Amino acid sequence: MSEPRSLAGEAEQLDAADGLAAVRGRFVLDDVTYLDGNSLGALPAHVPARVADVVARQWGELRIRSWEESGWWTAPERIGDRIAPLVGAAAGQVVVGDSTSVNVFKALVAAVRMAQEDGGAGGGDGGAGPVRDEILVDATTFPTDGYIAESAARMTGCALRPVAPAEVPGALGDRTAAVLLNHVDYRSGRLHDLPGLTAAVHAAGAYAVWDLCHSAGALPVGLDEHGVDLAVGCTYKYLNGGPGSPAYLYVRRDLQPRFDSPLPGWNSHAEPFGMRPAYAPASGAVRGRVGTPDILSLLALDAALDVWDEDAVSVAAVRAKSLALTDFFLRCVGAYVPDGRVESVTPAAHAERGSQVALRCEDAGEVMKRLIERGVVGDYRAPDVLRFGFTPLYVGFADVERAARVLARTLAG
Amino acid sequence: MSEPRSLAGEAEQLDAADGLAAVRGRFVLDDVTYLDGNSLGALPAHVPARVADVVARQWGELRIRSWEESGWWTAPERIGDRIAPLVGAAAGQVVVGDSTSVNVFKALVAAVRMAQEDGGAGGGDGGAGPVRDEILVDATTFPTDGYIAESAARMTGCALRPVAPAEVPGALGDRTAAVLLNHVDYRSGRLHDLPGLTAAVHAAGAYAVWDLCHSAGALPVGLDEHGVDLAVGCTYKYLNGGPGSPAYLYVRRDLQPRFDSPLPGWNSHAEPFGMRPAYAPASGAVRGRVGTPDILSLLALDAALDVWDEDAVSVAAVRAKSLALTDFFLRCVGAYVPDGRVESVTPAAHAERGSQVALRCEDAGEVMKRLIERGVVGDYRAPDVLRFGFTPLYVGFADVERAARVLARTLAG
Repeated sequence: MSEPRSLAGEAEQLDAADGLAAVRGRFVLDDVTYLDGNSLGALPAHVPARVADVVARQWGELRIRSWEESGWWTAPERIGDRIAPLVGAAAGQVVVGDSTSVNVFKALVAAVRMAQEDGGAGGGDGGAGPVRDEILVDATTFPTDGYIAESAARMTGCALRPVAPAEVPGALGDRTAAVLLNHVDYRSGRLHDLPGLTAAVHAAGAYAVWDLCHSAGALPVGLDEHGVDLAVGCTYKYLNGGPGSPAYLYVRRDLQPRFDSPLPGWNSHAEPFGMRPAYAPASGAVRGRVGTPDILSLLALDAALDVWDEDAVSVAAVRAKSLALTDFFLRCVGAYVPDGRVESVTPAAHAERGSQVALRCEDAGEVMKRLIERGVVGDYRAPDVLRFGFTPLYVGFADVERAARVLARTLAG
Repeated sequence: MSEPRSLAGEAEQLDAADGLAAVRGRFVLDDVTYLDGNSLGALPAHVPARVADVVARQWGELRIRSWEESGWWTAPERIGDRIAPLVGAAAGQVVVGDSTSVNVFKALVAAVRMAQEDGGAGGGDGGAGPVRDEILVDATTFPTDGYIAESAARMTGCALRPVAPAEVPGALGDRTAAVLLNHVDYRSGRLHDLPGLTAAVHAAGAYAVWDLCHSAGALPVGLDEHGVDLAVGCTYKYLNGGPGSPAYLYVRRDLQPRFDSPLPGWNSHAEPFGMRPAYAPASGAVRGRVGTPDILSLLALDAALDVWDEDAVSVAAVRAKSLALTDFFLRCVGAYVPDGRVESVTPAAHAERGSQVALRCEDAGEVMKRLIERGVVGDYRAPDVLRFGFTPLYVGFADVERAARVLARTLAG
């Protein structure tokens, strides 16, 4: 235990200099130190009134008219266009709806179909190369991505091969159809090399599908800049959309005409109210829609995204503060926690770090339980990881110092 | 134009004798005659406060703790058990989540896999009979069911054959794997023979998947009684769950161990927080879950279902009133509207009628627009149908008489 006063003092200075400090006031927070925004983002204070309006006026009074008058029908693509700049995408490429799992299925099946249509590495004229019948998946992926990838493989006649992200370049070959990767590992908080891996996937003639659950809203993604093919992500972590708020799907503009959805619901039809027996896909991101959108959750998310309209708030500012927060947390943990009691599994290099710190710790489940009792909320991931998420919009440096201090006290028994 | 006074007087008497009349007070209604509950149910008056609590307290204050403390995690199956008695199912067979389209995909793919595992009509020992490689779909189905069925067929190596429901028995054969049918036709309001068609499908060794969107909450379904295999339905029509509220999936108990989902998301894992790389399905209805449930929409639906807990409210009472309402509407239309101006495409026989009346009418789109301007809200379905839905929980006989009267006036020019 060393220099508690100086770190607390430093936290105070850092908070005073923080250009995002005022944004905290836009969220409902209490005296709990909430470091679980990488699981469920906190409630933006203006959201309850907006949801109340959707329920009481839009549903209660306008009823069916709201599909047009309240913009319900176009909400999936309109809200997609609000998320787009946060992941480095121009408008018209992101659509909101369904869960992340369902979107992984759409993206991966569509990617395999494009690869098979390309006809292998030999060229784009069909049948020139070997069959593309392999999907690579991040071996350390959040489980659902792996389960869904297995189903996508089974249903498209592919084999599924789990590969550590770093080994993807070596594993790519002319049978690779698609590669599903996480931008940030949910457990370790490691940030993967999206530009480099995407380029490697493309060099092999395959398609890259990125899962942005743990990066969107926390750091720059650059989907358009790096030529990502397809991407999915959730909206209830760093985007604060609320519990189980709908996920999104990105389909790069030039691939949209070839996006062949395995879930071609009526919302993706070129003429949804034509009620035609034959399916004809819509143009653009709308093609990624499926069934009737979940309006209450969708419009809560829409309201939550208003936070990003503030002048002070940008992905660059958020990323700078995120790195400062996680750096400071690692320093405080180093200063307060006895050597050897915890070990960070989150990379020290900024280029490899998301917006969370994961500490390997004996009895992690029990330790997290006691931390929560003491008002520091992170979470536990089996078998031995304490996970702390730092949402720059509402977490301050004093929170960080307190969390490390309480952790040290808890580990001391 | 005849006997307007006597029908208005009769409506008054019918409303006075209506055992469900008091339930209307539980809904937010105004002077509009709302006959579009078969598209979007009206708002139950207690729902706004319940949603406000979910947002402000469960999300805002408890945050991540609500997954356990507010019962979020188990909401899909708990709310499924509340819907179950409304569709004649014992507990443990219905799970809520995703859209109807996504659930059609799960149900149909799972049905085909079971049929193919059975090994054809020859017996259950695998490979004894011909390959089951055909899916029959109601040729007059709501379009999304047909689009999704086509995708399910494509991804399971089946052919898709559209067949009019009445012709299904003759079309069944030893290659039929699964049959997707609507209980009530969305356009005509025709109620199909669920017991008879299910028995015919079973006699052919195939699996029956029923879409209950236009029947659940309006009439008895009897899933368990009639041995239905799988069923799906939406919750925003006669169940009043709110715009785009999540759909549900029924998997008959004895089929659950064989339910092999094409969307095996982590929520359907036997140990979802074990974060295991290998998928192992949960037992029971939970196996039909996919990703993180959409909590706001799900709990709005949960609140809306409270209406069904009242003593006066039962599916039998609702059905009796529904038939009385549609009978009375047809009488009023017959009395008020000049002969030949509209033609009912909804069957006259009670056994073949859902809870709506569809009238074929020249210029139907324009006529519906004018009806809505005059405060009678139904909807239009291309090319020539005026659709009027009668939700017995909040539609009264005076509404019915008024709608017919305004329709006659509108058609008179």
